[in-house]
Amino acid sequence: MGYAMNSKIEKLIKQFAKLPRVGNRAAVRIVLSILQTRDGRAENLAAAILDATENVVPCAICGCLTDKNANACEICRDSSRANGQLCIVRDMGDVWTLEKSSVFHGRYHIIGGLLSGASGVMPDDLNIATLSARIKNEKITEIIFALPNTVEGKTTQHYIMSVIGDAAGVRFSELASGVPLGGDLDYIDDGTLSLAFGGRRPL
Amino acid sequence: MGYAMNSKIEKLIKQFAKLPRVGNRAAVRIVLSILQTRDGRAENLAAAILDATENVVPCAICGCLTDKNANACEICRDSSRANGQLCIVRDMGDVWTLEKSSVFHGRYHIIGGLLSGASGVMPDDLNIATLSARIKNEKITEIIFALPNTVEGKTTQHYIMSVIGDAAGVRFSELASGVPLGGDLDYIDDGTLSLAFGGRRPL
Repeated sequence: MGYAMNSKIEKLIKQFAKLPRVGNRAAVRIVLSILQTRDGRAENLAAAILDATENVVPCAICGCLTDKNANACEICRDSSRANGQLCIVRDMGDVWTLEKSSVFHGRYHIIGGLLSGASGVMPDDLNIATLSARIKNEKITEIIFALPNTVEGKTTQHYIMSVIGDAAGVRFSELASGVPLGGDLDYIDDGTLSLAFGGRRPL
Repeated sequence: MGYAMNSKIEKLIKQFAKLPRVGNRAAVRIVLSILQTRDGRAENLAAAILDATENVVPCAICGCLTDKNANACEICRDSSRANGQLCIVRDMGDVWTLEKSSVFHGRYHIIGGLLSGASGVMPDDLNIATLSARIKNEKITEIIFALPNTVEGKTTQHYIMSVIGDAAGVRFSELASGVPLGGDLDYIDDGTLSLAFGGRRPL
């Protein structure tokens, strides 16, 4: 820079650039836009950030983000969803994705990450310890794993199965692997093809 | 959604999605990231937004964003930049771009937009009225137009030249048009090629 950029602006750009999917160039454009167009957007955004960070917390039962003052999240309070099915997911985004598709009508358990030696994520870092109590309290009969179809996802799944064990008397299942709807074989990787062949359905 | 998303979260996603270069999907990812990882990023961002929107204002002379308490921006206060050259640009982002390249050592005048019949931007919407006084006060001898090389940019440039007129005794210039450095002719549009031919330099 020929001259030092205003320090408050520079700081704001740096804060925006720390967000996922926002690089430094996008952060500059965002800051320019909100400082050059004084339409209240910036103040509203700041207020919404503070409101959400103060008042939204993970549900003590399942981990879904919910109001601080609620006893439990909307799904955990909804007795019509106590159907004995518990779907294990990585994070809140996965719950939103599944809720949008309306394929699942039971309850969720967010574990908050995946076991990973490389990233140093150990069992204690995940929300797994309360699972056994939930199975008993909520009379869970089936645990459905909807974790990412990756090495970390499968490792985490096997770890959770070993922790719960057979004693609990629950059935375990996982989402089917295969060719996605509309998937062209040309674009499917070998691993997926191999899973799709192995799991082929008789007609 | 199978269940209503928490209203505070929904509101926060909407506020993020209003920012330039942030779509709805990116906004969801940003909100998930700051609410799931409580590392103070969100609070710092909110504080930086409020600090900047409260304390950063356009310089009364040139329009550059600067501290509210400063009499004028850093460039307008720097007497070494009073070299008689005034560069007319559209917005603060263009000033940053030019300052980064260190090609210009005079002062700027941000007009804040471009004349456009389609978007309904009229001369009164732009920061043009103070230009004549600046030329006199700051003994400007050359006005350099660094506006976008578009129909709107050229229209705005011609309008400003007509407002200032010959009486002021300043020279006008504009950035050269042509093939960019490293530009392959295959990828240059016809308009640029035509300008580059018209402005060819004898060797």
